[in-house]
Amino acid sequence: MRDGIDIEFREVGMRDGLQNTKGFFPTEAKIAWMKAEVASGMPAIEICSFVPPKLIPQFKDAVEVVEATHATDTGDCIISALIPNMKGAERGVELGMKKLNFVASVSETHNLSNVRRKPEESVEDFRRIVEMRDALPDDKKFVIDGGMSTVFGCTLEGNVDPAAAVKLAQQFVEAGADHLTVCDTVGFANPKQVRDMFRLLQSELGPDVTMTAHFHDTRGLALANMEAALDVGIRSFDACLAGLGGCPWAPGASGNMVMEDGVFMAEAMGMRTGIDVDKLCSIREIIADNLPGEPLHGAIAKAGVPKGHSPASSFAAAAE
Amino acid sequence: MRDGIDIEFREVGMRDGLQNTKGFFPTEAKIAWMKAEVASGMPAIEICSFVPPKLIPQFKDAVEVVEATHATDTGDCIISALIPNMKGAERGVELGMKKLNFVASVSETHNLSNVRRKPEESVEDFRRIVEMRDALPDDKKFVIDGGMSTVFGCTLEGNVDPAAAVKLAQQFVEAGADHLTVCDTVGFANPKQVRDMFRLLQSELGPDVTMTAHFHDTRGLALANMEAALDVGIRSFDACLAGLGGCPWAPGASGNMVMEDGVFMAEAMGMRTGIDVDKLCSIREIIADNLPGEPLHGAIAKAGVPKGHSPASSFAAAAE
Repeated sequence: MRDGIDIEFREVGMRDGLQNTKGFFPTEAKIAWMKAEVASGMPAIEICSFVPPKLIPQFKDAVEVVEATHATDTGDCIISALIPNMKGAERGVELGMKKLNFVASVSETHNLSNVRRKPEESVEDFRRIVEMRDALPDDKKFVIDGGMSTVFGCTLEGNVDPAAAVKLAQQFVEAGADHLTVCDTVGFANPKQVRDMFRLLQSELGPDVTMTAHFHDTRGLALANMEAALDVGIRSFDACLAGLGGCPWAPGASGNMVMEDGVFMAEAMGMRTGIDVDKLCSIREIIADNLPGEPLHGAIAKAGVPKGHSPASSFAAAAE
Repeated sequence: MRDGIDIEFREVGMRDGLQNTKGFFPTEAKIAWMKAEVASGMPAIEICSFVPPKLIPQFKDAVEVVEATHATDTGDCIISALIPNMKGAERGVELGMKKLNFVASVSETHNLSNVRRKPEESVEDFRRIVEMRDALPDDKKFVIDGGMSTVFGCTLEGNVDPAAAVKLAQQFVEAGADHLTVCDTVGFANPKQVRDMFRLLQSELGPDVTMTAHFHDTRGLALANMEAALDVGIRSFDACLAGLGGCPWAPGASGNMVMEDGVFMAEAMGMRTGIDVDKLCSIREIIADNLPGEPLHGAIAKAGVPKGHSPASSFAAAAE
């Protein structure tokens, strides 16, 4: 985590948020969104997914978007991309990515449907990617994140065995993961489960393994789950501006945890995010302009901060 | 709390939910809503407010609505009404209410604007109401709840001193309150503040004083605040079906904590509410039919419960 913040948010909107939306979000708008988030103080952005454009046309402009991040002064904002396999990793290296987020599902059925291999085959891929990374010259090396989907439940299998999540986490760590991301892929988690799961992972993996929590607000519990995760010591969270990323099978349901509401909650609780919530809210316009008809979720953008609210972060130094 | 539940929800929609809505909610629809909530297993309902119809026309039918609760087999559902003063209490006695919820604001400016007296004058009223109650024959006696508004912040004053909340709580308890309700009247609270406030009240008041938490979702934090309150031992919550009760000065912002989402969260966490969430969601139709144009909030009604969800409550005994 960079100096001066207590909690690290990662914007996953350009990846997870746009993955399920109808229609193509223009390349220029993606770049404008990225630049505005960097300017708001966002510590980390997952910018795209390196998957075949045939599978997800939304990411057909991944090269241009990544090149725009290189051409931008992104300061200490960590830019990363999602990869499902070795091909994605190789593409990441070609494009000079400094961080790549590998993903596999704890649920076998979900992994088969998502990346067309069993979880153990994904782990094998992950091992090979780490070996490939370790053999690179230092200036080409990248940080690798082990992302675990469906940790808290699966649309296909229902309940997921916590032991299976621990196993995948251990395999990632043994294979050389620098960090783990623990995902409630479709909004199944409740705060008790969040506490129990993170405590189990912490006790099985030890204190050196850092973890990001990735929640969805499908059933309204994203911020309650964040509060439970904070309570057991998690300090890194994925979220998406305006809570994009709703599931096709739950019309009207929201998607990723709403970034601006999570940032407000953290700041109100006295934790410095380094993010200016007003600037963040103003970026919703870019979404509204480029995703007509898509519902924008989130409370703080509508209600404003309460009278007397004093954010934990000081933005004096960051003023233009 | 009644046998067989671990957490007690109170529906405040017919009072707090309807207080700010445009237009009159028909008496028959209020009664239908009350009956349907009783049938869903709701343990408590605040049915109306005993205030002059000139001030809040929505409650001009309070007599008919209360009489309907008497004419209904409400089982062990606790029916109560809000009162701002002695007049309200006298009306409650006339109408045979078994529970009355007095309310005063911690913030002086808010209390002056809401009930046109200083908090200490409200406490004086409360004392006289308890004396009046104690002098009644046993079959006329009522349980009295001391409701504290603006505990976590005030639209007029901004931040509110926790010591002032403790003082009002102590005055209520010394005057004979059977229970306290601690209200985030306009959605200012954050989970840290909730933990700190309830811990402070618990330590100042001792273990015998039971408390209900009353949260608003204006800034999206109602369920996160509920999760924090649960974590410090609170087991009684106000909420409103479909999260009615948005504030006139925050267009699009939601109101009370969404009942069905709170019930789902509790059940998913293994706490028995005694409430059938499917039945509860179906009651939204009554709201939709009678408040055209009013946004209905809440996630679980849109997304449904996740695959594999097994509620803590067993409804076998309650089946029709």
